[in-house]
This record gives sequence, structure tokens and C-alpha cells, in this order.
Amino acid sequence: MKLAIYDTTLRDGGQGAGVSFTTEDRVRLMHVLDGLGISYIEVGMLAAKRDEPVLVRLLSEKLANAKTTVFVNTCRVGQAAAESGTLAAAAALPSDAVTVCGKASVRQVKNVLRTTEDENLRMIADSIRYLVSSGKEVIFDAEHFFDGYGDDPTYALRVLISAAEAGASQIVLCDTNGGNLPDVIGLATEAAKAHVSIPLGIHCHNDLGMAEACSLAAVLSGASSVQGTVSGLGERCGNANLNTMIPLLQLKLGFSCVPPEKLRGLTAAARTVCELANRTFDEREPFVGGYAFTHKAGTHIDGVLKRPDAFEQVAPEDVGNARNLVVSGLAGRAALIEKMTAYCPDLDKDSEEVARAVETVRAREDAGYTYEDAEASLALLIGEVLGRRRRYFSLERLQVTVDAGEESHGYASGAAAMVKISVGDGEEIAAGEGVGPVNAMDAALRRALVRFYPAVSRVSLTDYKVRVISSAATASTVRVVIESTDGVRVWRTVGVSADVIDASFQALRDSVEYMLSITEDK
Amino acid sequence: MKLAIYDTTLRDGGQGAGVSFTTEDRVRLMHVLDGLGISYIEVGMLAAKRDEPVLVRLLSEKLANAKTTVFVNTCRVGQAAAESGTLAAAAALPSDAVTVCGKASVRQVKNVLRTTEDENLRMIADSIRYLVSSGKEVIFDAEHFFDGYGDDPTYALRVLISAAEAGASQIVLCDTNGGNLPDVIGLATEAAKAHVSIPLGIHCHNDLGMAEACSLAAVLSGASSVQGTVSGLGERCGNANLNTMIPLLQLKLGFSCVPPEKLRGLTAAARTVCELANRTFDEREPFVGGYAFTHKAGTHIDGVLKRPDAFEQVAPEDVGNARNLVVSGLAGRAALIEKMTAYCPDLDKDSEEVARAVETVRAREDAGYTYEDAEASLALLIGEVLGRRRRYFSLERLQVTVDAGEESHGYASGAAAMVKISVGDGEEIAAGEGVGPVNAMDAALRRALVRFYPAVSRVSLTDYKVRVISSAATASTVRVVIESTDGVRVWRTVGVSADVIDASFQALRDSVEYMLSITEDK
Repeated sequence: MKLAIYDTTLRDGGQGAGVSFTTEDRVRLMHVLDGLGISYIEVGMLAAKRDEPVLVRLLSEKLANAKTTVFVNTCRVGQAAAESGTLAAAAALPSDAVTVCGKASVRQVKNVLRTTEDENLRMIADSIRYLVSSGKEVIFDAEHFFDGYGDDPTYALRVLISAAEAGASQIVLCDTNGGNLPDVIGLATEAAKAHVSIPLGIHCHNDLGMAEACSLAAVLSGASSVQGTVSGLGERCGNANLNTMIPLLQLKLGFSCVPPEKLRGLTAAARTVCELANRTFDEREPFVGGYAFTHKAGTHIDGVLKRPDAFEQVAPEDVGNARNLVVSGLAGRAALIEKMTAYCPDLDKDSEEVARAVETVRAREDAGYTYEDAEASLALLIGEVLGRRRRYFSLERLQVTVDAGEESHGYASGAAAMVKISVGDGEEIAAGEGVGPVNAMDAALRRALVRFYPAVSRVSLTDYKVRVISSAATASTVRVVIESTDGVRVWRTVGVSADVIDASFQALRDSVEYMLSITEDK
Repeated sequence: MKLAIYDTTLRDGGQGAGVSFTTEDRVRLMHVLDGLGISYIEVGMLAAKRDEPVLVRLLSEKLANAKTTVFVNTCRVGQAAAESGTLAAAAALPSDAVTVCGKASVRQVKNVLRTTEDENLRMIADSIRYLVSSGKEVIFDAEHFFDGYGDDPTYALRVLISAAEAGASQIVLCDTNGGNLPDVIGLATEAAKAHVSIPLGIHCHNDLGMAEACSLAAVLSGASSVQGTVSGLGERCGNANLNTMIPLLQLKLGFSCVPPEKLRGLTAAARTVCELANRTFDEREPFVGGYAFTHKAGTHIDGVLKRPDAFEQVAPEDVGNARNLVVSGLAGRAALIEKMTAYCPDLDKDSEEVARAVETVRAREDAGYTYEDAEASLALLIGEVLGRRRRYFSLERLQVTVDAGEESHGYASGAAAMVKISVGDGEEIAAGEGVGPVNAMDAALRRALVRFYPAVSRVSLTDYKVRVISSAATASTVRVVIESTDGVRVWRTVGVSADVIDASFQALRDSVEYMLSITEDK
């Protein structure tokens, strides 16, 4: 059975605390969603005159698959739809549809709108009719439907019937406050299904940790459209997570949501959107998270290696993800051996080297290193334990200077670093500048090395993460993870120290040495 | 109805990727859990000789409420329980109970254990009997029960019956791979309930985003014990989140899990455990997250202020959380006015100052500032817009130097900072040292200021977070949030710049100026 996926990342997702999309972020996001084969993209909310230019800009984008829609509230209490400037503006926008939001709860009508039940029905029907007569497809968001159904089911259903009669193409049942449980959502959806014949959608929030379970309950009770956001971005605890809903519905339950080949882009899309939202990606996310197919505990890993299907729900590659055996203090030898044999196919499982590698990794982890995110540093560490790591240079001197003088808002500043290294009998000292100290160190280090190793000129940094890992404030230990590329490969390295400069240098050194270790042209 | 809460944060939570607890972390964690009124604490796994000293250390702690239990696997294929060194060691440990884990799935027995159905039953019964005869309470974890019930319900139920007959006090039904949906969990729990008369527990994983919904389904089908972890820490996508389950079951559904006064410690406990786990706390967590009762969108906030009960599921204070109206680009004037009137009770909602404040906050957010986490910087910014911000000093010069020379592992290093400020006609230059540049700047700045403002000697930094907010690697914009205290109050400030030193100085300056602005003794 076919289900429509309705994305509201740009509108409801943008209301999440800590999230704010620029217009260009939104444009990129639209194309990412379109590339996934999403049915509807809600590009934003139209509430005031100032929203118009952005919406016009977004709607000028050409999409391959998705229909676009704009979110508006109904006309106001006592106002005819034809007199609403907002509705007129919505009708004039070049979107495929308009999503009209109205209240489906008596309590909300009385306490928040402070009007009568009939006036609310009038506002909804009048707004929908006006937009339909302007040639728009109209989707009706029945705000607070489930709470309203609990308080006064007759009125909540009357709201739906009014919307359907006014010409809505689809009614979305909203658990606006996220306070209902799956069984209630299922029963109320069945009741709605019995009273209106147009397609129903579901819009859930995660305030009880049930956004996906509630959305599923609605689908199993007859909803044919699922509203949600990428990574569940949204107000308070977020909306239903489409990264979870799409594979769950399609791969586990056999519904058809997006073309299978597009589903393989899901993991990459989720990471891109998270980056646009300026959020740290949650690696524990079902299906798309870096840990979703990661196995850590010893005995368990043996099991996974024997029979992946006995431990994994879907094939990781169907959502563009990959299986990952994590090396960590709790892991048995199996996972580490798996990694080590990648470097040294001749290794003996019971050898003393393997035992030493396990011990070394454990000791490093105790000191705050993690290798889940820094496979290049792990490769170097294993090489070290096996006596095969080559030291490409010695650091003789490192100095970083940051100068700043006050300006209007911030502080104009520049950083400079001086690095002296030795390679065999040769020495080199070089300086580098940058907008920050890490940038300056990176420039100086590569400038010093390039005479000995021309290949380092191809390395550039693509990401840089700092994490305080103990709680004694600025004197704490910090972990720095650096992502680098030579234009083709991408690798990550880690450094740990009480000093962010020192930790950064460790990660920089590992990055350069790893690159050299895998490069022919040294 | 009373439900038992069984915490496995120390065991299953510790298997989460990126999580590793030291022994002292685990001790602290036990007391945090005990303080919440949790029924059972699984303190760890006993798998090898080397696990014993840590378990002995943990079990030497005196707890007020919780029973302790240790996790072990059954004896091995072909091995009598009495011959298992692990089981003998478990029997000898001073825990209140032992949790024995055995397989409740034919497929797992055949493919992973590679033994017969009968031998698996023998291993389970023999292991339980041995521990019961040693005087232990034995909890049986029926691993892979739900998958096993799907493949061969008769055998899965036979496993439960064997465990009950052997003397287990409780059987925990495990969805080990996290692949079952709430309806299946509910039906299989009902079947289990019909076949054994001892209490049933539920253990779920979040691979389908359903860990809490599945746990709830089991409780509604007769399980009387819920296993989970704080913040859902655990392998892959994690375990059922007790931070969600406890308020959901107790406040929404009327079950009795922990004493109500202890429930008010939940938010603080969740944050402490997250810190011990070295994880960034997920502010979107239901009930305990900083965003759980945070309202951002304009019209919505008006509604919340009118009728909190129309928008919130539980009273935030019942879980030790608080309502929070967020000021952000998407917010209407209502939230910002709420904040502004805290500083200036005489403000007019429609005044030009309010309009200017909204605009200023929006412009700053566009530049990467966020005020959700930095209420002190927001207070200063509002003061600035209102023309009431006092500038306590001007920065004349700032220089930071970091020196390092190679040592055995890392790099010995020290940072020094020189800060010159002016206050009216007076000037002061001071230097400070620290293990890192921020530490050094903080020391120098306070040393320069103390002559003018003695109160600054009471300020100290308690936390320090760096976030890269655009993706052009080390040349990116970074956001620094600093948490400071004067020993009584705690406040947070923010700085944004392309340079981490510069961003840090902005946050340091705000911290000191905020402290001075609220201090009598300037």
C-alpha cells in the first residue's frame, strides 16, 4: 500500500529550540527532501507580510518529485476569509497546495481562541473554501484533534466533517501537544475514518517519547499520510522522526513510501539536514545513526559475525548505512581482530600482539580517547603496537600566538603558529597564519613538512570537533576530533589533552601521518 | 498498581558506543539511582575473573532503597552449573540478586549456541537452581524472547516455564535486537502471563524507535517490572529510557514506580548520569530535557501563558524540570516581553524598545548566537538595547601564547595570556597562566579587573562548551558557551567568532560583566 510522506522540517522543524535555518539552508533542505522522493514539502509558514519574500524565493526552486505547500492559519475570529490578507497572499503564492491549520478541540476554541464552536467551524470552512476557489489544493491540519476528541468527540469530528465538506483534499489529525498514547491515537483515527471519506494524515509530537509509535498506530488504523521531520526536529521534544518512520513503514511493514533506490540516500540526507540545522547528529538514531548497526559487546560481536540476520532488523545498506564493529574497552577480541586483520592479514588471534593491542586501546580509552570516530588514529595505534608505525617527523618546537584588539562588536583577531620539525638529519621551521590557532598550526605544520613530503600539500581539514570530557571547566581534558581529506578519501583522527591546542596538534599530527602512511608518493 | 523499575545503566548502558564508566563513575551512578527510589540496580556483568574486584567494590556501597543484582550468562553447553567458575563467583558476591541470562529463541540456540533445544533448557534450569540453592534471588532474562516467540512460540514459552520451575523470582522478557513492534510485544506478553505465574519484566531496545512504546505495551499486558537505562543509554540505538518511562507510567497512567518526592529529582539525576557517561545531554528528551517544557513559536506562547494545562502534559516541577519561554527569531513578542519585564517592569509591550530588542536578537541569531543556553548574555543584550548596559571596562590589548615541546606521549604545554584593560582613566595590564588558553585568559582578565572590581575574585568557570557552527573546518565560526558561578548563582554566556580565542573572550567578558551587574559590592 502506498503512503504519502509529508515533511514539515522547514516549518515545524524550524521551531525546534536551537534550530534556525537561513533561506539558503532551506533551499538546500528542499532539494535533499526532494531527492528522497518525499510526497509533500511544507516550505514554511505564512503569518505576516515579511514571510512572503522568503516563501517566494523557496517556491521558485524546481523540484523533481515533491509537491510544495505553505502553512497558514484560518482567518481570524469575526473575519471573512476573503478579507484576510494572509489567505489572499497564500492564494497568490506559487505553491502546489496550502495547508490550513484550524482548531479541532472545544477547549482550545473556548480558552485560547475565546470564541464559539460555530464561529470556529465557520472560520475553518470559509478559509478552505476561499483557497479552493482560488484554485489551490487545500490540506487541513486539525490542530489538537486528539485532545479535542478526548474532551468532546462529537465536536472534534464535526470539525473534520466541515473541513471535508469545504473541499479539503486531505485532513491531518494532529496530536499538537504530544500527550496521547498509541491506543488512543489508533481509536480516534478509526473514528475519523468512519466520518470522513477523504485521505487522513497523522502529525505527532514526542512529548511522551511516542511520536513514532503513535504515527504507526494511526497508519495501522487507516491514515495514509505521515507528517514528520528529519531527525524529529521540532518544538519541545520534537516531531515524529521521518528517518525512523520511512524505513520502519517501508522495510519492516511493506508499505510503499519512497522509491527503494532513493531510500538508500536516507542516511546521507539525515546527516546533511542535521548539519544545516546546526545540530550534533544523534548517532543512536534508529536505521540512520552511526551506532544503529554498531556492535560493541564481546560475545555479541561473535554472534553478529556468525549470523548478521540474527541480530539486525534491516540490511544497513538499504538505508545507505553500514555495519560497524566497534573497538572499545568492553569489546572482546573479535572486533579488534577484525580491524587488525585489515592491516595485517597474517595476524594470529591468540598472539601476544593482539593481547597488547587490546590493552593499549583500553588504556587510551581510560585517558579519554575514543576510536569510534577516529579510525585513522586507531590504524596508527595498531601499527604502533605491532612495531610497524613509521614516525615521519619529530616536533622540536610549537608556538601559537593570538593577538586581538577591541573593535565595534567582536574583536579583530589573527592567530600565528611557528612549528619546527626534524626529519632524520634535516630540520625545518615554518610559520603559518589563520583565523584561529588550529588553522594557523595546520598551515605551519604542512609548510614545514612539504619539503620532505610533498604529498601533504593535498591534505585539507574538513571538520573539527572539540569535546570537554571532564567537568573541571576550562582546566578540563578536551578531546579533539579532526576530519581531513585528500580530495578523495576522508579520515578522522583524535587528540586528548588538558589543552585544546595540544589536543588539536595530536589530531593534526595523526592526520598527516595517516595520510602519508597510505600514500604511495611520499 | 505498583511497578518495579529495574535499572541496567551500569551494565547494558555501559555497552553503548562512546560510553565508558570508570569504577568511581559507577559508584556515583549507583547512589544517584538509589536516590531516585529505583527497585533494582544491575551493577554490572560478571563474565571473567577480572570483573570480580570492581563488582566487589560496587557491592560494598550501602544503598537506602535499591536491591543490587549482577548479570551472568548461564553455564556453558555441556557444563554443569556447579562446575561453572562464573556462577560460583556470582553466588559468592554480596549482591541481593543474580540476573541469569539465557536464550529463549530456537534460532539463537541452533545458530549461535549451536546446541539442542533440550540442552539449552537444561543450562537455564541448572544455572537458576544452582544459584537459588546458594541462597540467591534469581531473575531470569529471557534473551531474544520476542523473536523466539515469533519463530516458535511453544519453545519460547517452554523456556519461561523451565526458568519459573527452577525457582526464578521474576522473568524478564527481552526484545534483545529491538526489532518487535508494540502490538507483538503486547500479545507475546499476554501469552507469557498465561503460562507462568511469577512476575514478568520487560527489556526493550530502540532499534525501531519503539523502546518505550513496546515497554508500555508489555506493562498494559501484565508485566510488572520495567527494565531500562537513564537516557536510554545502551548498545546501538539504546535501551528503553527510564527518564521517559517513569513519569509516563506514574504521572500520566497512575502506576506507582518511585515515591513522588523522589521523582522530583529525576531531571537532576538524568543530567548527572549523562555527565558521568561523557555524553551531551539531549535537551529534547521527554519530561527531563531542557526543551521539554520550552515554547518557542509566537502565537503558541501566548496560548501557554494563558493556559499552561492546555499545552503541557505534566507539571514540569513534578519531575524537577521548569517551564521555559525561549527567545528566538521565530518567537513572537510575548516571550521576549516576558523576559524583558523581568529586568524592566515598566516596559510597554508595543514600545519601540521592544521592537528593537526583537530585531537585535534576530540579527544576533543570524550571526550564530543562541540565547537558549545563555540567559546572562541575553540579559546584557536587552540592557544594551534599552540603553542601560554599563560597560565596566574596555579591552586595550589581548595576547595569548601557547608553547609546547615534544614529550613521550602528548606534548607538555602551558598557555599564557596578557590582558590590558582600561576603566575610566585607569589602566591595568596583567598576565595569567593556565593549562589552556581560555584558562590563561580568564586568570589574566580577572587579575586586571580586581583592582577596580574586587567582586570578580569570586567568579569561577564551571563549564566550557565549543561548537563549530558552520562547516568550513578550522576556519569555521565557533560558538563558545561558558558557565560561571560565584559560589551561589550559576549563569551562562555566549560568544561567537571565527576564532575560538575571540569567541571565548566574548563569553568571558559577558560572564564578568553579568556578575558585576547583579552584584551589590562592585
